[in-house]
Amino acid sequence: MDSDTWRRRLASLWQSSIPLATAMQVEIRRLDPQRLQLAAPPGPNRNHMGSAFGGSLQGLATLAGWGVTLVATGDAERYRVVVRDAHMRFDAPVFSELVAEARMPAPAALTAFRDALARRGRARLTVNVEIRGADDAPAARFAGEFVALEVSGG
Amino acid sequence: MDSDTWRRRLASLWQSSIPLATAMQVEIRRLDPQRLQLAAPPGPNRNHMGSAFGGSLQGLATLAGWGVTLVATGDAERYRVVVRDAHMRFDAPVFSELVAEARMPAPAALTAFRDALARRGRARLTVNVEIRGADDAPAARFAGEFVALEVSGG
Repeated sequence: MDSDTWRRRLASLWQSSIPLATAMQVEIRRLDPQRLQLAAPPGPNRNHMGSAFGGSLQGLATLAGWGVTLVATGDAERYRVVVRDAHMRFDAPVFSELVAEARMPAPAALTAFRDALARRGRARLTVNVEIRGADDAPAARFAGEFVALEVSGG
Repeated sequence: MDSDTWRRRLASLWQSSIPLATAMQVEIRRLDPQRLQLAAPPGPNRNHMGSAFGGSLQGLATLAGWGVTLVATGDAERYRVVVRDAHMRFDAPVFSELVAEARMPAPAALTAFRDALARRGRARLTVNVEIRGADDAPAARFAGEFVALEVSGG
């Protein structure tokens, strides 16, 4: 699957099956071999102080990390991905659009991840996600541990 | 403010100012000097596998921790609360209603928190939140660091 196919696949999956992604108005801004970038407007994601709600930032980062892990499996039909651990550090409030960028794993990490997946039908990936504010300054950092599992049956 | 007043205050704040809390259909199930318990139905919080979306669990836990910290200040007009750090460990999927319970700080911790707040106009609180599934088994654990700040002006 190429990046455009993955982009459509993720968008359709979130739109049809994750109501909160629709409520947050999550949009896939960019997907290429280096990164997955998601964006969401401030309106539906605001808190009582007019900045981004911490739960929205965690939700957006979780979707980004989850998406990167599914793309890393190379096969959206064969594997499913679950989040095991999530940590977010909030450094500055976000008053503008919420933008989360998850880095794709480096080539060596990707190879190790796919080898483990092929060998054991299960592999773990740590994904770092950065949230940036209007002036492109880092606003929050997320590290998530995701597990890909081979779907049984067939 | 007594527990009933706080309960109405939190509910009104979330309903009027945090659209995602409304999208998640968050309800304050219980608020007393020991705990704040929030609940949300599975429907709007599901993922593509029919269990609770990790972002919803983090959002619910963040609201619970935030609520406990605001209640701990003793004065919703004088202080505002922001989340600084959030960690969630996901142990088991939640297929039923989402229930998050945050523990109020122990008396000594509450006294220290309020002393710091009165002295410096700023204090930090770590709040533990537990998510339980249908059979009341622990499904996810959250630890959040929240900062209360005196609202300037006046």
